[in-house]
Amino acid sequence: MTNVGMEHLHPIRVYYEDTDAGGVVYYSNYLRFAERARTEFLRDAGFDHIALMTERDLVFAVRRCEVDYFRPARLDDALQICTRSLKTTGASFWLEQLVKREGATLVGIKIQLVCLNRNSRPVRLPENLRLALNSKIP
Amino acid sequence: MTNVGMEHLHPIRVYYEDTDAGGVVYYSNYLRFAERARTEFLRDAGFDHIALMTERDLVFAVRRCEVDYFRPARLDDALQICTRSLKTTGASFWLEQLVKREGATLVGIKIQLVCLNRNSRPVRLPENLRLALNSKIP
Amino acid sequence: MTNVGMEHLHPIRVYYEDTDAGGVVYYSNYLRFAERARTEFLRDAGFDHIALMTERDLVFAVRRCEVDYFRPARLDDALQICTRSLKTTGASFWLEQLVKREGATLVGIKIQLVCLNRNSRPVRLPENLRLALNSKIP
Amino acid sequence: MTNVGMEHLHPIRVYYEDTDAGGVVYYSNYLRFAERARTEFLRDAGFDHIALMTERDLVFAVRRCEVDYFRPARLDDALQICTRSLKTTGASFWLEQLVKREGATLVGIKIQLVCLNRNSRPVRLPENLRLALNSKIP
Repeated sequence: MTNVGMEHLHPIRVYYEDTDAGGVVYYSNYLRFAERARTEFLRDAGFDHIALMTERDLVFAVRRCEVDYFRPARLDDALQICTRSLKTTGASFWLEQLVKREGATLVGIKIQLVCLNRNSRPVRLPENLRLALNSKIP
Repeated sequence: MTNVGMEHLHPIRVYYEDTDAGGVVYYSNYLRFAERARTEFLRDAGFDHIALMTERDLVFAVRRCEVDYFRPARLDDALQICTRSLKTTGASFWLEQLVKREGATLVGIKIQLVCLNRNSRPVRLPENLRLALNSKIP
Repeated sequence: MTNVGMEHLHPIRVYYEDTDAGGVVYYSNYLRFAERARTEFLRDAGFDHIALMTERDLVFAVRRCEVDYFRPARLDDALQICTRSLKTTGASFWLEQLVKREGATLVGIKIQLVCLNRNSRPVRLPENLRLALNSKIP
Repeated sequence: MTNVGMEHLHPIRVYYEDTDAGGVVYYSNYLRFAERARTEFLRDAGFDHIALMTERDLVFAVRRCEVDYFRPARLDDALQICTRSLKTTGASFWLEQLVKREGATLVGIKIQLVCLNRNSRPVRLPENLRLALNSKIP
């Protein structure tokens, strides 16, 4: 949960719940790991879900994701999720999230999040969030 | 999703998502199976979640469950969840839910559900639900 | 679980387990739905996981997926997963899987699966699987 | 992940993946939290899953659990799982695991684990595990 340069790191331990009968992490569970890391990435930047919802009526929804599976993670692995900002547009932003084990990338994720109001309509990103995200783009 | 005598049967197929690296169904996932079967048990009795919530402001919350694991289920297994009503009290009811494979009970669940209003306070079971549940007690 | 023309349809009911505090299906759970539908798609074509594993030492692993989230599914929704074959290559094949509700596409998934042997090395698709998949390409 | 007296504490943050459309943590997910905490409890006592499996052919399976749901956890909650040893028998041991938020117990779990060999037969607990568990009983 630290920032190394522009990159946010979040540690994840693999438990039985994450694995499947193939002996590896089930393919959709990397997206659960990524969401945990994203939440901490945003929290560390000053934006937590509850405050955004209750104070500004904003939520983030995933609009698109692309996932490349290079190598599987396994039970008891100590993983790191490396999150960095790729770009922002009016109502959305793109993140790259890499699932790593001892430096090697196991899974690569590109994800687009869109900012929605309480009626589920896209709205402009809060300006301080846009600035925070852009300041993290290498 | 049929009633045989007093018993409600719901079929479940085991997929990779349900299993873990031990090659068997992960222990908490039987409770997911049980919730699916309970939902259909209640729907078949005329009570679906959405209608209860929107028309009567009622939800069911699990208050207690006891789970006995006798034998594990495995990938691709065709299971049956057998649900029956055990008893009703003022604001709650007990169900037994057995996870079976070819007649053999793999997991036995006893579960207490309590009826809550929108402020999360226990309220009396709707009378027609109580009647429906009691009519199903052997 | 029927084939309409070239398309395989698999029904999914949305339960509480699938939803999140946003009131909609959690974003990674559409991939669980897709895996259930893929399993039945392959089973209906004569290829089930257990037989492939025990008789031929083959498993399928997801190599890449792209997911577009257009509209959210909600509690109690009756969804259909429409699966069709897009193309095959030496060791892999691509599927399109659409999550639909009353004809409207909520989520679109493109997924590449690769055929692996017991040492996790890519191997040629079994010829009858290739033929079965290609026969389903519109 | 520290021991305070006889009690092992493991922190858990609640993410969207853990919640359901009722706005609270889905009932079976407390068992996922408990398994994470148990794994760390055992690891801290010198017993990790992979070593037990590969060096001694032993795994732990849940034989029974009892869960009392007192109050719900919610999105973003910072929970603590308090694990302590209750008793050991020949091939099994009982743990109590309490899910707490700011000192208040939300969910109470009693769980029996049994030690199995590679043929899924119950075997005596390793003596050093029995000693470690008994030394933690208040």
